[in-house]
Amino acid sequence: MKRADPMRVTVFSRMTTLRHYRLCPHSRSIRILLGELSIATTLIEDKPWTWPEDLLAVNPAGELPVLVTREEEPVCGAYAISEWLSEDVVREHPDGSGGERARQGHVFPGSASERAEVRRLVDWFHGKMHRDVTGFLLEEKVYARFRAEGGGSPDAEMLRSVQSNMRQHLRYVEHLTSARKWLAGETLSFADLAAAGQISVVDYLGGIDWAGHDAAKLWYARIKSRPSVREILSERVPGAPVPPDYYDDPDF
Amino acid sequence: MKRADPMRVTVFSRMTTLRHYRLCPHSRSIRILLGELSIATTLIEDKPWTWPEDLLAVNPAGELPVLVTREEEPVCGAYAISEWLSEDVVREHPDGSGGERARQGHVFPGSASERAEVRRLVDWFHGKMHRDVTGFLLEEKVYARFRAEGGGSPDAEMLRSVQSNMRQHLRYVEHLTSARKWLAGETLSFADLAAAGQISVVDYLGGIDWAGHDAAKLWYARIKSRPSVREILSERVPGAPVPPDYYDDPDF
Repeated sequence: MKRADPMRVTVFSRMTTLRHYRLCPHSRSIRILLGELSIATTLIEDKPWTWPEDLLAVNPAGELPVLVTREEEPVCGAYAISEWLSEDVVREHPDGSGGERARQGHVFPGSASERAEVRRLVDWFHGKMHRDVTGFLLEEKVYARFRAEGGGSPDAEMLRSVQSNMRQHLRYVEHLTSARKWLAGETLSFADLAAAGQISVVDYLGGIDWAGHDAAKLWYARIKSRPSVREILSERVPGAPVPPDYYDDPDF
Repeated sequence: MKRADPMRVTVFSRMTTLRHYRLCPHSRSIRILLGELSIATTLIEDKPWTWPEDLLAVNPAGELPVLVTREEEPVCGAYAISEWLSEDVVREHPDGSGGERARQGHVFPGSASERAEVRRLVDWFHGKMHRDVTGFLLEEKVYARFRAEGGGSPDAEMLRSVQSNMRQHLRYVEHLTSARKWLAGETLSFADLAAAGQISVVDYLGGIDWAGHDAAKLWYARIKSRPSVREILSERVPGAPVPPDYYDDPDF
């Protein structure tokens, strides 16, 4: 049955809306970014494994997140959304360049080459780590379970290979945070939020052994303490595996 | 054996350098972009399936392409490079906003929401189509062959599923180009170049049946005619499958 609720349209035209899934890592990085930028957002949750028709209508790729602007235009995917948010201030404060720099600074701070480093790392976490680790764990431990009511156990050999990949990614975070305060340098950037999106989902699914990675832990403790992240870590998904005790504890 | 060639360093500091592989689709989209922007570039070819150490030294992900700037700073991956190039003019012509708009217009043209559409499609081709089609074909038909000297035949069931994915992607290009001159709208954008990178590699490997997709063919014929693309289509890779006769013919 189609809904034709005029109130809903009114809300859409006033508020930024984000279509997301609570355990989708790319949705998480954009939710954290919206929180960091203090952009009030209406959340609509989709179940991406069901390929919902009204999601396909706004994003033919069927992927999350999708941001629906106050002008009701969809911005599809974490890449387009993060870049759109970095440009957003130009439209909101057309009177001066100060506003533009403030917003762009928050998402992709620094010089052109520093921004290239931020984007390299965003690609690392949204692309490489998702391919190597997060995508497989989500599919096997969450989506397959919901799709097939019960599902089977993940292939043991694949799981070992994904666990080994995760150890490499954690070592890389340890390497970066041993030399830098934040992943891309001395300033918080979208690289940290992209990493937090992936890492928090793998951590929910019990896929990270933090022992012996003190610099990475210190960095993640600072990430966990941010209000934008705390809210997300307080959520639980019925039917998904139960996260470990330390999952939402900044002092872990 | 390490090379310490001072001439090589001199070349690096004067010219933009691109580390690429001839059949890497992401390398191709950046090579086409550099051509469109008339940026003279020294090409260095890597064999990504061998994980070369000197590539890992500039890009720990071991992925292509990597652009090395005239200041010898690496910009890693098609995402960071395309955004870096869209910002490039600000640094080269700091005297006026005209230059900035001209360059940014070429890569991600239009308003904020039009740029979001360009980036959605870049993500579609660099991400989704690569996962659905190009990555598998390259691995099975090229990299596995070079790695194992001969290799086995690709898994028949996987191959059928990839062929079916390709038909869906071609239908999507047909859908877009039936309504628009270029993929993201009335202007050439990086979305077209990202699509050309993927599609030209799949076409090289004989993976596209163009029959019945007239709008997509017309679009691709216009892409093929561009000097930036012609040069790439004239190249052959010894040891890889031989491309079909029409591969480099704009009138196909």
